[in-house]
Amino acid sequence: MNVRLEIEYDGTGFAGWQRQPHKPTVQAHIEDTIASVVGQRTVVYGASRTDSGVHALGQVANFFVEGPYPAPTWRKILNHHLPREIRIVDAREVPLTFHAQKHAVSKIYEYRVLNRNVASALDRKLLFYPKVCDWDRVRRAMPYFLGHHDFKSFQAAKSEVRTTDREILSFTLETEMPGLFVFRIEGTGFLKQMVRSVVGTLLEIGEGKRDPDSIPAILAARDRRAAGHTVGPEGLCLVRIRYGGHA
Amino acid sequence: MNVRLEIEYDGTGFAGWQRQPHKPTVQAHIEDTIASVVGQRTVVYGASRTDSGVHALGQVANFFVEGPYPAPTWRKILNHHLPREIRIVDAREVPLTFHAQKHAVSKIYEYRVLNRNVASALDRKLLFYPKVCDWDRVRRAMPYFLGHHDFKSFQAAKSEVRTTDREILSFTLETEMPGLFVFRIEGTGFLKQMVRSVVGTLLEIGEGKRDPDSIPAILAARDRRAAGHTVGPEGLCLVRIRYGGHA
Repeated sequence: MNVRLEIEYDGTGFAGWQRQPHKPTVQAHIEDTIASVVGQRTVVYGASRTDSGVHALGQVANFFVEGPYPAPTWRKILNHHLPREIRIVDAREVPLTFHAQKHAVSKIYEYRVLNRNVASALDRKLLFYPKVCDWDRVRRAMPYFLGHHDFKSFQAAKSEVRTTDREILSFTLETEMPGLFVFRIEGTGFLKQMVRSVVGTLLEIGEGKRDPDSIPAILAARDRRAAGHTVGPEGLCLVRIRYGGHA
Repeated sequence: MNVRLEIEYDGTGFAGWQRQPHKPTVQAHIEDTIASVVGQRTVVYGASRTDSGVHALGQVANFFVEGPYPAPTWRKILNHHLPREIRIVDAREVPLTFHAQKHAVSKIYEYRVLNRNVASALDRKLLFYPKVCDWDRVRRAMPYFLGHHDFKSFQAAKSEVRTTDREILSFTLETEMPGLFVFRIEGTGFLKQMVRSVVGTLLEIGEGKRDPDSIPAILAARDRRAAGHTVGPEGLCLVRIRYGGHA
Protein backbone atom coordinates (compact mmCIF):
# COMPACT_ATOMS: atom_id res chain seq x y z
CA MET A 1 0.00 0.00 0.00
CA ASN A 2 1.22 3.52 -0.84
CA VAL A 3 0.32 6.06 1.88
CA ARG A 4 0.32 9.80 1.16
CA LEU A 5 0.86 12.09 4.16
CA GLU A 6 0.22 15.78 4.60
CA ILE A 7 2.49 17.14 7.32
CA GLU A 8 2.85 20.29 9.42
CA TYR A 9 5.97 21.00 11.43
CA ASP A 10 7.54 23.69 13.53
CA GLY A 11 11.08 23.52 12.15
CA THR A 12 12.72 25.39 15.04
CA GLY A 13 14.12 22.29 16.73
CA PHE A 14 14.84 20.17 13.65
CA ALA A 15 17.82 19.94 11.31
CA GLY A 16 15.42 20.10 8.37
CA TRP A 17 13.41 17.41 6.60
CA GLN A 18 16.10 15.02 5.41
CA ARG A 19 17.56 12.25 7.55
CA GLN A 20 21.13 12.97 8.70
CA PRO A 21 23.33 11.05 11.12
CA HIS A 22 22.99 12.11 14.78
CA LYS A 23 20.61 15.01 14.08
CA PRO A 24 16.89 15.33 14.75
CA THR A 25 15.11 15.58 11.40
CA VAL A 26 11.46 15.32 10.44
CA GLN A 27 12.01 12.45 8.01
CA ALA A 28 13.93 10.45 10.62
CA HIS A 29 11.18 10.97 13.24
CA ILE A 30 8.51 9.68 10.86
CA GLU A 31 10.58 6.78 9.49
CA ASP A 32 11.61 5.68 12.97
CA THR A 33 8.01 5.76 14.16
CA ILE A 34 6.84 3.62 11.23
CA ALA A 35 9.70 1.17 11.83
CA SER A 36 8.81 0.85 15.51
CA VAL A 37 5.18 0.08 14.62
CA VAL A 38 5.62 -2.38 11.74
CA GLY A 39 9.01 -3.78 12.73
CA GLN A 40 10.81 -2.97 9.52
CA ARG A 41 12.28 0.13 7.95
CA THR A 42 10.72 2.02 5.06
CA VAL A 43 11.71 5.24 3.32
CA VAL A 44 9.39 8.26 3.60
CA TYR A 45 9.73 10.33 0.42
CA GLY A 46 9.19 14.04 1.07
CA ALA A 47 8.12 16.46 -1.68
CA SER A 48 10.49 19.18 -0.50
CA ARG A 49 13.76 18.94 1.43
CA THR A 50 13.24 21.88 3.76
CA ASP A 51 16.41 23.21 5.40
CA SER A 52 17.26 23.29 9.08
CA GLY A 53 14.86 25.55 10.99
CA VAL A 54 12.34 25.90 8.15
CA HIS A 55 8.65 25.27 8.94
CA ALA A 56 5.93 23.50 6.98
CA LEU A 57 2.17 23.80 6.84
CA GLY A 58 1.76 21.59 3.77
CA GLN A 59 4.66 19.18 3.31
CA VAL A 60 3.61 16.07 1.37
CA ALA A 61 5.30 12.68 1.64
CA ASN A 62 4.59 9.05 0.78
CA PHE A 63 5.74 5.64 1.96
CA PHE A 64 5.03 2.01 1.18
CA VAL A 65 3.79 -0.26 3.92
CA GLU A 66 1.97 -3.57 4.33
CA GLY A 67 0.01 -4.66 7.34
CA PRO A 68 -3.31 -4.42 9.06
CA TYR A 69 -3.89 -0.65 9.19
CA PRO A 70 -5.96 1.24 6.62
CA ALA A 71 -4.16 4.40 5.45
CA PRO A 72 -6.20 6.93 7.54
CA THR A 73 -5.28 5.05 10.70
CA TRP A 74 -1.66 6.00 10.06
CA ARG A 75 -2.58 9.60 10.88
CA LYS A 76 -3.58 8.57 14.41
CA ILE A 77 -0.69 6.15 14.89
CA LEU A 78 1.95 8.65 13.79
CA ASN A 79 0.47 11.58 15.75
CA HIS A 80 0.38 9.42 18.85
CA HIS A 81 4.13 8.77 18.67
CA LEU A 82 5.56 11.89 17.03
CA PRO A 83 6.65 15.01 18.96
CA ARG A 84 3.89 17.60 18.97
CA GLU A 85 6.00 19.88 16.74
CA ILE A 86 5.25 17.41 13.91
CA ARG A 87 1.60 16.73 13.05
CA ILE A 88 0.20 14.47 10.35
CA VAL A 89 -2.80 16.42 9.08
CA ASP A 90 -3.94 13.78 6.59
CA ALA A 91 -3.08 10.20 5.58
CA ARG A 92 -4.69 8.44 2.62
CA GLU A 93 -4.07 5.56 0.27
CA VAL A 94 -2.90 6.54 -3.21
CA PRO A 95 -2.01 4.57 -6.36
CA LEU A 96 1.27 2.68 -6.14
CA THR A 97 2.69 4.94 -8.86
CA PHE A 98 2.36 8.16 -6.78
CA HIS A 99 5.66 9.74 -5.70
CA ALA A 100 5.43 12.86 -3.50
CA GLN A 101 8.63 14.42 -4.81
CA LYS A 102 8.72 13.38 -8.46
CA HIS A 103 5.08 14.18 -9.20
CA ALA A 104 5.02 17.61 -7.52
CA VAL A 105 4.06 20.22 -10.12
CA SER A 106 4.85 23.28 -8.02
CA LYS A 107 5.71 24.35 -4.48
CA ILE A 108 4.54 27.37 -2.54
CA TYR A 109 6.64 28.96 0.19
CA GLU A 110 5.93 31.96 2.42
CA TYR A 111 8.57 34.15 4.00
CA ARG A 112 7.38 36.38 6.88
CA VAL A 113 9.23 39.57 7.85
CA LEU A 114 8.40 41.74 10.88
CA ASN A 115 9.67 45.19 9.94
CA ARG A 116 9.52 47.28 13.12
CA ASN A 117 11.93 48.17 15.88
CA VAL A 118 10.60 45.72 18.51
CA ALA A 119 10.61 41.92 18.24
CA SER A 120 7.31 40.06 18.52
CA ALA A 121 6.34 38.68 21.93
CA LEU A 122 3.95 36.13 20.45
CA ASP A 123 5.39 34.93 17.16
CA ARG A 124 8.88 33.50 16.64
CA LYS A 125 8.18 32.14 13.15
CA LEU A 126 9.24 35.25 11.31
CA LEU A 127 12.33 37.33 10.57
CA PHE A 128 12.70 40.19 13.06
CA TYR A 129 13.92 42.97 10.79
CA PRO A 130 14.30 46.37 12.49
CA LYS A 131 16.01 48.21 9.61
CA VAL A 132 14.46 51.04 7.58
CA CYS A 133 13.13 49.51 4.36
CA ASP A 134 11.40 51.10 1.37
CA TRP A 135 8.89 48.38 0.47
CA ASP A 136 7.96 50.11 -2.79
CA ARG A 137 11.52 49.44 -3.99
CA VAL A 138 11.14 45.79 -2.97
CA ARG A 139 7.86 45.51 -4.89
CA ARG A 140 9.44 47.06 -7.97
CA ALA A 141 12.20 44.42 -8.05
CA MET A 142 9.99 41.36 -7.50
CA PRO A 143 8.58 40.89 -11.07
CA TYR A 144 12.11 40.30 -12.40
CA PHE A 145 12.04 36.88 -10.75
CA LEU A 146 8.90 35.69 -12.57
CA GLY A 147 9.25 33.10 -15.32
CA HIS A 148 12.14 30.85 -16.35
CA HIS A 149 15.62 31.82 -15.10
CA ASP A 150 18.95 30.30 -14.25
CA PHE A 151 19.05 30.84 -10.48
CA LYS A 152 22.69 29.84 -9.96
CA SER A 153 23.36 33.21 -8.26
CA PHE A 154 20.73 32.31 -5.64
CA GLN A 155 21.97 28.80 -4.86
CA ALA A 156 23.81 27.88 -1.67
CA ALA A 157 27.50 27.52 -2.46
CA LYS A 158 27.99 23.83 -1.74
CA SER A 159 24.90 22.28 -3.38
CA GLU A 160 25.03 19.97 -6.39
CA VAL A 161 22.10 19.72 -8.78
CA ARG A 162 21.73 18.78 -12.43
CA THR A 163 20.48 22.17 -13.52
CA THR A 164 19.98 25.53 -11.84
CA ASP A 165 17.11 26.51 -14.17
CA ARG A 166 13.87 27.07 -12.32
CA GLU A 167 10.49 28.66 -13.10
CA ILE A 168 8.73 31.10 -10.77
CA LEU A 169 4.97 31.02 -11.34
CA SER A 170 3.93 33.76 -8.93
CA PHE A 171 5.53 36.06 -6.39
CA THR A 172 3.47 38.35 -4.17
CA LEU A 173 3.97 40.52 -1.08
CA GLU A 174 1.16 41.21 1.38
CA THR A 175 0.87 43.09 4.66
CA GLU A 176 -1.01 40.95 7.18
CA MET A 177 -0.67 43.32 10.13
CA PRO A 178 1.10 46.68 10.51
CA GLY A 179 4.77 45.85 9.98
CA LEU A 180 4.24 42.18 9.03
CA PHE A 181 5.22 41.59 5.40
CA VAL A 182 4.62 38.18 3.85
CA PHE A 183 6.32 37.08 0.62
CA ARG A 184 4.51 34.22 -1.14
CA ILE A 185 6.37 32.48 -3.95
CA GLU A 186 5.27 29.61 -6.16
CA GLY A 187 7.75 27.79 -8.36
CA THR A 188 8.29 24.49 -10.13
CA GLY A 189 11.15 23.92 -7.72
CA PHE A 190 13.69 25.78 -5.63
CA LEU A 191 17.44 25.46 -5.22
CA LYS A 192 18.97 25.15 -1.77
CA GLN A 193 18.44 28.43 0.17
CA MET A 194 17.05 30.05 -2.99
CA VAL A 195 13.99 31.67 -1.40
CA ARG A 196 16.11 32.97 1.48
CA SER A 197 18.76 34.55 -0.77
CA VAL A 198 16.04 36.06 -3.01
CA VAL A 199 14.44 37.65 0.07
CA GLY A 200 17.84 38.76 1.41
CA THR A 201 18.62 40.45 -1.92
CA LEU A 202 15.19 42.16 -1.96
CA LEU A 203 15.71 43.52 1.56
CA GLU A 204 19.05 45.00 0.47
CA ILE A 205 17.16 46.70 -2.36
CA GLY A 206 14.64 48.04 0.18
CA GLU A 207 17.52 49.38 2.27
CA GLY A 208 18.89 51.26 -0.75
CA LYS A 209 22.04 49.14 -1.06
CA ARG A 210 21.04 47.80 -4.46
CA ASP A 211 18.94 49.03 -7.35
CA PRO A 212 15.47 47.50 -7.98
CA ASP A 213 16.54 47.03 -11.61
CA SER A 214 19.72 45.14 -10.71
CA ILE A 215 18.03 41.70 -10.62
CA PRO A 216 18.57 40.79 -14.31
CA ALA A 217 22.31 41.43 -13.96
CA ILE A 218 22.46 39.37 -10.75
CA LEU A 219 20.71 36.46 -12.51
CA ALA A 220 23.00 36.78 -15.54
CA ALA A 221 26.13 36.66 -13.36
CA ARG A 222 25.45 33.01 -12.35
CA ASP A 223 27.62 33.69 -9.30
CA ARG A 224 26.47 33.46 -5.67
CA ARG A 225 28.59 36.53 -4.82
CA ALA A 226 26.48 38.70 -7.13
CA ALA A 227 23.33 38.29 -5.00
CA GLY A 228 22.53 39.44 -1.46
CA HIS A 229 22.78 37.62 1.84
CA THR A 230 20.71 34.60 2.92
CA VAL A 231 18.08 35.54 5.52
CA GLY A 232 17.43 33.16 8.43
CA PRO A 233 15.26 30.04 8.21
CA GLU A 234 12.87 31.14 10.99
CA GLY A 235 10.70 33.18 8.60
CA LEU A 236 10.34 30.48 5.94
CA CYS A 237 7.42 28.06 5.68
CA LEU A 238 6.55 25.46 3.03
CA VAL A 239 2.87 26.23 2.58
CA ARG A 240 1.68 23.87 -0.14
CA ILE A 241 2.69 21.33 -2.76
CA ARG A 242 0.62 21.22 -5.93
CA TYR A 243 0.08 18.06 -7.97
CA GLY A 244 -1.50 17.62 -11.35
CA GLY A 245 -4.79 15.71 -11.60
CA HIS A 246 -6.12 14.16 -8.42
CA ALA A 247 -3.01 13.68 -6.30
CA MET B 1 6.00 62.47 33.86
CA ASN B 2 3.19 60.15 32.81
CA VAL B 3 4.38 57.39 30.45
CA ARG B 4 1.93 55.45 28.28
CA LEU B 5 3.02 51.96 27.22
CA GLU B 6 1.73 49.69 24.50
CA ILE B 7 2.51 46.08 25.37
CA GLU B 8 2.50 42.67 23.69
CA TYR B 9 2.78 39.47 25.66
CA ASP B 10 2.61 35.73 25.24
CA GLY B 11 0.46 34.89 28.26
CA THR B 12 1.33 31.18 28.32
CA GLY B 13 3.80 31.43 31.19
CA PHE B 14 2.17 34.24 33.18
CA ALA B 15 -0.53 34.26 35.85
CA GLY B 16 -2.26 37.11 33.98
CA TRP B 17 -1.67 40.85 34.06
CA GLN B 18 -2.27 41.72 37.68
CA ARG B 19 0.38 41.46 40.38
CA GLN B 20 -0.17 38.55 42.78
CA PRO B 21 2.04 37.21 45.54
CA HIS B 22 4.57 34.56 44.45
CA LYS B 23 3.30 34.34 40.87
CA PRO B 24 4.84 35.60 37.63
CA THR B 25 2.58 38.32 36.24
CA VAL B 26 3.10 40.88 33.50
CA GLN B 27 2.40 43.84 35.77
CA ALA B 28 4.91 42.61 38.37
CA HIS B 29 7.61 42.11 35.72
CA ILE B 30 7.20 45.66 34.43
CA GLU B 31 6.89 47.26 37.89
CA ASP B 32 9.92 45.38 39.20
CA THR B 33 11.97 46.44 36.18
CA ILE B 34 11.07 50.11 36.65
CA ALA B 35 11.88 49.86 40.38
CA SER B 36 15.28 48.33 39.65
CA VAL B 37 16.10 51.19 37.24
CA VAL B 38 14.88 54.21 39.19
CA GLY B 39 15.33 52.81 42.73
CA GLN B 40 11.77 53.29 43.84
CA ARG B 41 8.47 51.54 43.29
CA THR B 42 5.69 52.83 41.06
CA VAL B 43 2.36 51.32 40.02
CA VAL B 44 1.81 50.44 36.38
CA TYR B 45 -1.90 50.84 35.58
CA GLY B 46 -3.08 48.38 32.94
CA ALA B 47 -6.16 49.00 30.78
CA SER B 48 -7.33 45.41 31.03
CA ARG B 49 -6.70 42.77 33.68
CA THR B 50 -6.13 39.81 31.41
CA ASP B 51 -6.48 36.40 33.08
CA SER B 52 -3.84 33.75 33.54
CA GLY B 53 -2.67 32.39 30.16
CA VAL B 54 -4.35 35.12 28.09
CA HIS B 55 -2.23 36.89 25.45
CA ALA B 56 -2.04 40.55 24.41
CA LEU B 57 -1.12 42.32 21.20
CA GLY B 58 -2.35 45.75 22.34
CA GLN B 59 -2.42 46.07 26.11
CA VAL B 60 -2.08 49.70 27.22
CA ALA B 61 -0.70 50.85 30.56
CA ASN B 62 0.65 54.01 32.19
CA PHE B 63 2.95 54.88 35.05
CA PHE B 64 4.38 57.99 36.68
CA VAL B 65 8.11 58.43 36.88
CA GLU B 66 10.69 61.19 37.36
CA GLY B 67 14.27 61.06 36.26
CA PRO B 68 16.57 61.56 33.33
CA TYR B 69 14.97 59.39 30.66
CA PRO B 70 12.63 60.75 28.01
CA ALA B 71 9.52 58.56 27.65
CA PRO B 72 10.57 56.76 24.41
CA THR B 73 13.78 55.62 26.11
CA TRP B 74 11.62 53.57 28.49
CA ARG B 75 10.77 51.29 25.57
CA LYS B 76 14.43 50.35 25.19
CA ILE B 77 15.13 50.13 28.92
CA LEU B 78 12.15 47.88 29.61
CA ASN B 79 12.73 45.62 26.59
CA HIS B 80 16.35 45.19 27.63
CA HIS B 81 15.33 43.82 31.05
CA LEU B 82 11.98 42.11 30.43
CA PRO B 83 11.64 38.45 29.37
CA ARG B 84 11.21 38.20 25.61
CA GLU B 85 7.61 37.01 26.07
CA ILE B 86 6.81 40.62 27.08
CA ARG B 87 7.60 43.39 24.59
CA ILE B 88 7.02 47.13 24.94
CA VAL B 89 5.96 48.15 21.44
CA ASP B 90 5.65 51.85 22.22
CA ALA B 91 6.37 54.28 25.08
CA ARG B 92 5.38 57.94 24.96
CA GLU B 93 4.74 60.83 27.30
CA VAL B 94 1.07 61.68 27.84
CA PRO B 95 -0.75 64.36 29.89
CA LEU B 96 -0.67 63.76 33.64
CA THR B 97 -4.44 63.24 33.56
CA PHE B 98 -4.27 60.15 31.31
CA HIS B 99 -5.25 56.88 32.98
CA ALA B 100 -4.97 53.72 30.83
CA GLN B 101 -7.81 51.90 32.55
CA LYS B 102 -10.27 54.66 33.43
CA HIS B 103 -10.11 56.41 30.06
CA ALA B 104 -10.47 53.29 27.92
CA VAL B 105 -13.56 53.67 25.72
CA SER B 106 -13.66 50.10 24.44
CA LYS B 107 -11.62 46.90 24.31
CA ILE B 108 -11.21 44.43 21.48
CA TYR B 109 -10.48 40.75 22.10
CA GLU B 110 -9.97 37.90 19.66
CA TYR B 111 -10.63 34.26 20.38
CA ARG B 112 -9.05 31.75 17.96
CA VAL B 113 -10.46 28.24 17.51
CA LEU B 114 -8.85 25.48 15.40
CA ASN B 115 -11.74 23.23 14.43
CA ARG B 116 -10.20 20.11 12.92
CA ASN B 117 -9.16 16.70 14.18
CA VAL B 118 -5.40 17.35 14.41
CA ALA B 119 -3.71 19.92 16.69
CA SER B 120 -1.50 22.58 15.11
CA ALA B 121 2.23 21.91 14.97
CA LEU B 122 3.07 25.60 14.63
CA ASP B 123 0.57 27.59 16.67
CA ARG B 124 -0.24 27.03 20.35
CA LYS B 125 -2.14 30.30 20.78
CA LEU B 126 -5.51 28.91 19.88
CA LEU B 127 -8.12 26.48 21.18
CA PHE B 128 -7.68 23.03 19.67
CA TYR B 129 -11.29 21.99 19.11
CA PRO B 130 -11.74 18.65 17.34
CA LYS B 131 -15.53 18.33 17.78
CA VAL B 132 -18.08 18.52 14.97
CA CYS B 133 -19.49 22.06 14.97
CA ASP B 134 -22.14 23.69 12.79
CA TRP B 135 -20.72 27.19 12.43
CA ASP B 136 -23.92 28.50 10.84
CA ARG B 137 -25.68 27.85 14.15
CA VAL B 138 -22.88 29.74 15.93
CA ARG B 139 -23.27 32.70 13.57
CA ARG B 140 -27.03 32.75 14.08
CA ALA B 141 -26.63 33.08 17.85
CA MET B 142 -23.95 35.80 17.86
CA PRO B 143 -26.14 38.89 17.21
CA TYR B 144 -28.05 38.30 20.46
CA PHE B 145 -24.97 39.51 22.34
CA LEU B 146 -24.85 42.91 20.60
CA GLY B 147 -25.86 46.01 22.56
CA HIS B 148 -26.47 46.57 26.28
CA HIS B 149 -27.06 43.49 28.43
CA ASP B 150 -26.65 42.28 31.96
CA PHE B 151 -23.91 39.66 31.55
CA LYS B 152 -24.14 38.16 35.05
CA SER B 153 -24.68 34.69 33.50
CA PHE B 154 -21.29 35.02 31.77
CA GLN B 155 -19.28 36.15 34.79
CA ALA B 156 -16.83 33.92 36.65
CA ALA B 157 -18.44 32.76 39.90
CA LYS B 158 -16.16 34.44 42.42
CA SER B 159 -15.74 37.94 40.96
CA GLU B 160 -17.03 41.10 42.56
CA VAL B 161 -17.93 44.14 40.47
CA ARG B 162 -20.30 47.08 40.91
CA THR B 163 -22.46 46.21 37.96
CA THR B 164 -22.64 43.35 35.48
CA ASP B 165 -24.11 45.55 32.72
CA ARG B 166 -21.87 45.72 29.66
CA GLU B 167 -22.23 46.87 26.06
CA ILE B 168 -21.03 44.83 23.09
CA LEU B 169 -20.25 47.10 20.13
CA SER B 170 -19.37 44.48 17.54
CA PHE B 171 -18.99 40.71 17.34
CA THR B 172 -17.70 38.99 14.22
CA LEU B 173 -16.45 35.55 13.18
CA GLU B 174 -13.96 35.06 10.39
CA THR B 175 -12.16 32.08 8.86
CA GLU B 176 -8.48 32.90 8.48
CA MET B 177 -7.38 29.47 7.19
CA PRO B 178 -9.32 26.25 6.63
CA GLY B 179 -10.49 25.24 10.11
CA LEU B 180 -9.25 28.38 11.88
CA PHE B 181 -12.19 30.42 13.22
CA VAL B 182 -11.52 33.79 14.83
CA PHE B 183 -14.10 35.54 17.02
CA ARG B 184 -13.52 39.28 17.35
CA ILE B 185 -15.49 41.12 20.01
CA GLU B 186 -15.48 44.79 20.94
CA GLY B 187 -17.13 46.00 24.12
CA THR B 188 -17.06 48.85 26.61
CA GLY B 189 -15.72 46.36 29.11
CA PHE B 190 -15.78 42.67 29.94
CA LEU B 191 -16.47 40.73 33.13
CA LYS B 192 -14.02 38.13 34.38
CA GLN B 193 -13.95 35.18 31.91
CA MET B 194 -16.88 36.73 30.00
CA VAL B 195 -15.43 36.29 26.49
CA ARG B 196 -14.46 32.72 27.27
CA SER B 197 -17.91 31.73 28.59
CA VAL B 198 -19.60 33.47 25.64
CA VAL B 199 -17.40 31.43 23.24
CA GLY B 200 -17.98 28.24 25.26
CA THR B 201 -21.73 28.75 25.05
CA LEU B 202 -21.55 29.41 21.30
CA LEU B 203 -19.55 26.20 20.73
CA GLU B 204 -22.23 24.25 22.60
CA ILE B 205 -24.77 25.79 20.22
CA GLY B 206 -22.61 24.70 17.28
CA GLU B 207 -22.50 21.17 18.68
CA GLY B 208 -26.31 21.07 18.83
CA LYS B 209 -26.48 21.01 22.64
CA ARG B 210 -28.24 24.39 22.79
CA ASP B 211 -30.52 26.37 20.52
CA PRO B 212 -29.17 29.46 18.69
CA ASP B 213 -32.19 31.35 20.02
CA SER B 214 -31.49 30.43 23.64
CA ILE B 215 -29.17 33.39 24.32
CA PRO B 216 -31.85 35.87 25.48
CA ALA B 217 -33.08 33.39 28.11
CA ILE B 218 -29.50 32.72 29.28
CA LEU B 219 -28.90 36.47 29.68
CA ALA B 220 -32.23 36.92 31.49
CA ALA B 221 -31.40 34.13 33.97
CA ARG B 222 -28.54 36.18 35.51
CA ASP B 223 -27.09 32.86 36.70
CA ARG B 224 -23.71 31.43 35.72
CA ARG B 225 -25.21 27.94 35.57
CA ALA B 226 -27.53 28.99 32.72
CA ALA B 227 -24.63 29.58 30.31
CA GLY B 228 -22.10 27.16 28.79
CA HIS B 229 -18.61 26.22 29.88
CA THR B 230 -15.57 28.51 29.94
CA VAL B 231 -13.12 27.72 27.14
CA GLY B 232 -9.37 27.81 27.87
CA PRO B 233 -7.30 31.01 27.97
CA GLU B 234 -4.86 29.86 25.26
CA GLY B 235 -7.13 31.08 22.44
CA LEU B 236 -7.79 34.54 23.89
CA CYS B 237 -5.86 37.68 22.98
CA LEU B 238 -6.40 41.32 23.94
CA VAL B 239 -5.98 42.96 20.54
CA ARG B 240 -6.62 46.65 21.13
CA ILE B 241 -7.77 49.30 23.59
CA ARG B 242 -9.60 52.28 22.15
CA TYR B 243 -9.49 55.74 23.68
CA GLY B 244 -11.49 58.84 22.84
CA GLY B 245 -9.67 61.83 21.38
CA HIS B 246 -5.92 61.62 21.05
CA ALA B 247 -4.97 59.08 23.70
